[in-house]
Amino acid sequence: MQSDCIFCKIIQKELPADFLFENENLVVFRDINPKAPVHQLIVPRQHLRSINDITISDGQILTEMIFTAQKMAVKLKIDRSGYKLLFNVEKGGGQVIFHLHLHLLGGWK
Amino acid sequence: MQSDCIFCKIIQKELPADFLFENENLVVFRDINPKAPVHQLIVPRQHLRSINDITISDGQILTEMIFTAQKMAVKLKIDRSGYKLLFNVEKGGGQVIFHLHLHLLGGWK
Repeated sequence: MQSDCIFCKIIQKELPADFLFENENLVVFRDINPKAPVHQLIVPRQHLRSINDITISDGQILTEMIFTAQKMAVKLKIDRSGYKLLFNVEKGGGQVIFHLHLHLLGGWK
Repeated sequence: MQSDCIFCKIIQKELPADFLFENENLVVFRDINPKAPVHQLIVPRQHLRSINDITISDGQILTEMIFTAQKMAVKLKIDRSGYKLLFNVEKGGGQVIFHLHLHLLGGWK
């Protein structure tokens, strides 16, 4: 945990968020500033800064993030209508919170 | 290989494309319809239809795709200025070619 990280505080339940899914490795909650009808964030419990900072040893959590997004899409019934999975990397790439997360975007008519 | 798949044909060198990187598992080439100054596609050699169709046994190629994108960003010197890694899933999610691929987008001023 990093003390000044908003996502670490959410994971530690020091800040409120509804967890749509959680297990020992990651949590899922809604983006508070949604860019699509469905906009969820898949967030590892471990504080990893960004895609730039992950190494081969983080491969398993990356895979689990993607499979979790895939399952959330099925649960939300947006798997066939379509969705996007997005990592924003660094400020210029749209990253706002420097705790690794995967965006699940969908639900367009 | 799927006979009617454009990306399978590119991988088999039946259609032209400059490979910016390749190894035994994947290839990287430019998107012919770029949406950013840098727009590369990381494409597994194996024909997997979309994120909807991958299973746990495909975890390793997914991870390799992401780490390849990370390395291409460093090579292109866009790792610190920022980039996006994007999977479009199904037509409504923006997927045009139904052979799994990861978009690397960046190079904005």
